[in-house]
Amino acid sequence: MGGFMATPKGNLIVGQSGGPTAVINSSLAGVIQEASKHQQIQSIYGMVHGIQGLLEDKLLDLGRQKAEVVEGLRRTPAAALGSCRYKLREEDLARILEAFQRHHIRYFVYIGGNDSMDTAHRVGELAKRENYDLVCMGVPKTVDNDLGWTDHCPGYGSVARWNAIATKDAGRDTEAIGIVDNVKIIETMGRNAGWITASTALARDSEDAAPHLVYLPERVFSEEKFLADVDRVYTRLGYCLVTVCEGLKDADGEYLTASTRAIDTDKFGHKQLGGVADYLCSVVAEGLKIKARFDKPGTIQRMSMVCASQTDLDEAYMAGQAAVKRAVSGTTDKMITLVRESNDPYRCVTGLAPLAEIANAEKLVPDEFISDDDTFVTQAFLDYATPLIGGPLPEYVRLERIEPV
Amino acid sequence: MGGFMATPKGNLIVGQSGGPTAVINSSLAGVIQEASKHQQIQSIYGMVHGIQGLLEDKLLDLGRQKAEVVEGLRRTPAAALGSCRYKLREEDLARILEAFQRHHIRYFVYIGGNDSMDTAHRVGELAKRENYDLVCMGVPKTVDNDLGWTDHCPGYGSVARWNAIATKDAGRDTEAIGIVDNVKIIETMGRNAGWITASTALARDSEDAAPHLVYLPERVFSEEKFLADVDRVYTRLGYCLVTVCEGLKDADGEYLTASTRAIDTDKFGHKQLGGVADYLCSVVAEGLKIKARFDKPGTIQRMSMVCASQTDLDEAYMAGQAAVKRAVSGTTDKMITLVRESNDPYRCVTGLAPLAEIANAEKLVPDEFISDDDTFVTQAFLDYATPLIGGPLPEYVRLERIEPV
Repeated sequence: MGGFMATPKGNLIVGQSGGPTAVINSSLAGVIQEASKHQQIQSIYGMVHGIQGLLEDKLLDLGRQKAEVVEGLRRTPAAALGSCRYKLREEDLARILEAFQRHHIRYFVYIGGNDSMDTAHRVGELAKRENYDLVCMGVPKTVDNDLGWTDHCPGYGSVARWNAIATKDAGRDTEAIGIVDNVKIIETMGRNAGWITASTALARDSEDAAPHLVYLPERVFSEEKFLADVDRVYTRLGYCLVTVCEGLKDADGEYLTASTRAIDTDKFGHKQLGGVADYLCSVVAEGLKIKARFDKPGTIQRMSMVCASQTDLDEAYMAGQAAVKRAVSGTTDKMITLVRESNDPYRCVTGLAPLAEIANAEKLVPDEFISDDDTFVTQAFLDYATPLIGGPLPEYVRLERIEPV
Repeated sequence: MGGFMATPKGNLIVGQSGGPTAVINSSLAGVIQEASKHQQIQSIYGMVHGIQGLLEDKLLDLGRQKAEVVEGLRRTPAAALGSCRYKLREEDLARILEAFQRHHIRYFVYIGGNDSMDTAHRVGELAKRENYDLVCMGVPKTVDNDLGWTDHCPGYGSVARWNAIATKDAGRDTEAIGIVDNVKIIETMGRNAGWITASTALARDSEDAAPHLVYLPERVFSEEKFLADVDRVYTRLGYCLVTVCEGLKDADGEYLTASTRAIDTDKFGHKQLGGVADYLCSVVAEGLKIKARFDKPGTIQRMSMVCASQTDLDEAYMAGQAAVKRAVSGTTDKMITLVRESNDPYRCVTGLAPLAEIANAEKLVPDEFISDDDTFVTQAFLDYATPLIGGPLPEYVRLERIEPV
């Protein structure tokens, strides 16, 4: 690609990849609306189902969509272009470049997580080797919040808000009916990183409020300690609400539960997880002889628009916009990052990280965000996460303990 | 109690029972605010954890709560007084009456479902036999919508709205990522009645939109037919979203899955259900060799305030109010019902049903609400349910299929 100072004139193509979120379409809207402002960009194309659709020549013309449809993307969940989890094979790369050539693509913007940034990077590398003028930019997207280099990731604020609200509501439920259903276990998403599970802690608005115990995959999970923890809370309050990450692992580094169905291993070799909360209900029933129930909201948490964080929606849009702005001014092979300039008042701008470095860096919840007894988060985590969820949680009342005279 | 025309002067006691909902506190607010307007009612007491708390003499003075706390109940989910699932024993009845006597209770309002109405009725019967002046009123509450005599039940409109929104969002997710996770199965609550599952159908806003298949427990569930149904949708669209009721039963009338843990059978002999969607994922994986994932949001669906239906909140309040109004004008041994006077415009008032008749009548989804192929609902159901969810669902956009020229 070497050395041109003026950015090339041609078409832009954008794709969405990985698990859909509440805000990935907001990033898409940012890309489309920004791209339409720049003369270097002629047509704006979308890959249907990401790279996989590109390989099948399934494209949409995004520049000719109605303005209200593009604007409506900012409040439409999931991935409007269709998403994929496609692991690039070496032989695909030449076909991609051939497709780019055929469609006069000079700008490639890929919205996704670790694996997607790897895809974007490899396409960019090939273009360089082949001396094909291509600007490659990544827009971060993952509810898991496990991308390196960025303060946080578009998608996280909304899933965090969803889980905080769900946990607050479930906490009220458990308070009310805990004399019958003694223990409630909520299972959140998250493979190796506990960011989503940690967000449930935002629900705790008073000392005895839920969640009472929060288990992150950054810590080895011990059933004995878990039972002792639950027993302690249950003895004190008469009920207990626990949140757990689907990716909890035991002392041998094995997932507590993982599907054994071969079909449930994805293209990247990741096994489908789940069933941790269900399993832990049995552990509680057997170990403590009390009743436990679980909620496994599953994918609903990641693309609920009702609970979306406005901050997250706005930042996702800003990240999409920034990718195009940077691209037309000559930046390539970079992912847009979110940079927190200040926490109070909260202020966030965009930055850049090398695509090559993102691909396989997984950002776990750091030690300083996890409480010493491994069952909650620290104030530092709450300070980190609070601005991301876009405003306070709904406020509820409690009856005062006034007894009859 | 017989024949007094002037209603007695004394205290009112109110309790909440059964599974908490988004709106049961709205009914409680209606009871408290209405009761405070009537001279016959001196103090207003609340049972902590329903009848179970009364037996332990755990009461709160609701008349001395701050006005803003009582008003705040209208937007606070779960059961602020605490709930219970307590099956009355014969020997409890005398103790209840003794407690009523000690606290000068002349008005007893119980907010709950079938079992709670049975409790209220039995207390009322004993009072009659003992010539103790007591006015007994029931306020219906159940997300399951399976109470007889009433057009619908406070709590249902909100859980219906929650499930319709969750299904709409999950549908967009499945559209986007269905090429990877081919089948999504969402499990809703509902023991024998499919009202909640049916409400997911409200999400379908175009011919191919989710949910594609809806299975109610009113119909025998056949795995063979299920696989054929899923295969048909999957072949046509490339993905399929299914909603199922946790209470699905096979041709032998057995639940597809029920916990075998003794601790999971409640005081009324009901087994804890669940795991249907998880099980059906295995059926799909084995039978069709495609990938299926499930969401089991569990109790989160029944007390989410973010998705609460304003119509439901208002009607729950109205039902609480009506119970007190009727009580002070001499009605007893009745449950407040909701009577739909008109559907367009929607207009709903309160009526009365005999407590004795409610107790064990379970209202299932009628045949005319279930489609002929047993995989969806009819327009008649949609007409029935639409006004209850309190307004349209969020609107999303879809990209137009404009291909590059």
